[in-house]
Amino acid sequence: MRNIALIIVDFQNGFDEVDYWGGNRNNPKAEENTRILLDVWRERKFPLFHIRHDSVNIKSKLAPGQWGNEIKEIVKPLPGEIVISKTVNSAFIGTDLKQRLDEQKIKSVVVVGLQTDHCVSTTARMAGNFGYDTIVVSDATATFDRVGVDGIKIPSSVIHMVNLSSLNGEFATVLTTEELLQKIEIETYA
Amino acid sequence: MRNIALIIVDFQNGFDEVDYWGGNRNNPKAEENTRILLDVWRERKFPLFHIRHDSVNIKSKLAPGQWGNEIKEIVKPLPGEIVISKTVNSAFIGTDLKQRLDEQKIKSVVVVGLQTDHCVSTTARMAGNFGYDTIVVSDATATFDRVGVDGIKIPSSVIHMVNLSSLNGEFATVLTTEELLQKIEIETYA
Repeated sequence: MRNIALIIVDFQNGFDEVDYWGGNRNNPKAEENTRILLDVWRERKFPLFHIRHDSVNIKSKLAPGQWGNEIKEIVKPLPGEIVISKTVNSAFIGTDLKQRLDEQKIKSVVVVGLQTDHCVSTTARMAGNFGYDTIVVSDATATFDRVGVDGIKIPSSVIHMVNLSSLNGEFATVLTTEELLQKIEIETYA
Repeated sequence: MRNIALIIVDFQNGFDEVDYWGGNRNNPKAEENTRILLDVWRERKFPLFHIRHDSVNIKSKLAPGQWGNEIKEIVKPLPGEIVISKTVNSAFIGTDLKQRLDEQKIKSVVVVGLQTDHCVSTTARMAGNFGYDTIVVSDATATFDRVGVDGIKIPSSVIHMVNLSSLNGEFATVLTTEELLQKIEIETYA
């Protein structure tokens, strides 16, 4: 299990402006669950990649140079940890993430972060399609209400569940934090 | 509008085995609508890319060398039209699609095909993230029922609507066939 990378996507202060992103965020404990994983990864010295969205839109809540761009305190990178800047949803486009994974001969990745159906889904899809054994942690990611293409609002919980279900078994395996921790225990001491 | 490419993803016979893919396919007219677009694209000599999934799993309904792998008669490529083979969901991974688009200085793409939440969504996400102005045609794509991560079946219509809503405004603009045809008329004769 040593070579399973944790990829933490876009847990940035700007997402606390909930209404801006659609309102009604689900999974309020996503950051706490990610911190639990982060502590395990740090303790075991597993590979770890913090991804930060550096929006090229200067009006964005995630534009560099402001509070909203900073990674949230609870999952803040420690000095020396790798932080990869991206400007689109996928952590693999316009970055050296794939090169870094391959240089370290990493075959398995865990994707967590914001938002389930945007950056997390896109990063997990590309990871799966590149051939990495990919896990998405259902309670360490979250999203917001969306206006449907028919103009009717779709609750965040539905967006979350449906998007994870479209990933599961096709691009990734969807696990809870607890299920992932159990898997790591078992495989470490097997 | 001359440089808007139509990318037709995976309309292959193997998908007619509906139960194998989850059952209860929505949008039965997706192929007919695609044919309407295909006729317009052919008539106007707009760029056109047929994508075929050549599964590396020899037991797959889409594995090469069998009926299921062939592109459906209604949208079958004509001699001389470009057919790109892929082995994963994204039409951009392991293919030269991006290189071909860029060589032709194509800035806009229309994505149709199967399945809404798998190959169509992944291809549209990457197109949007690569910077192409991307349109997904809601009634020229379709999906099947899925078993949710909680074990409860999710109807294809919900999978379809939610996945399109997660794309819309973030990665792509979601239009109907009729809306797209109107847009092409207006921009061609503007």
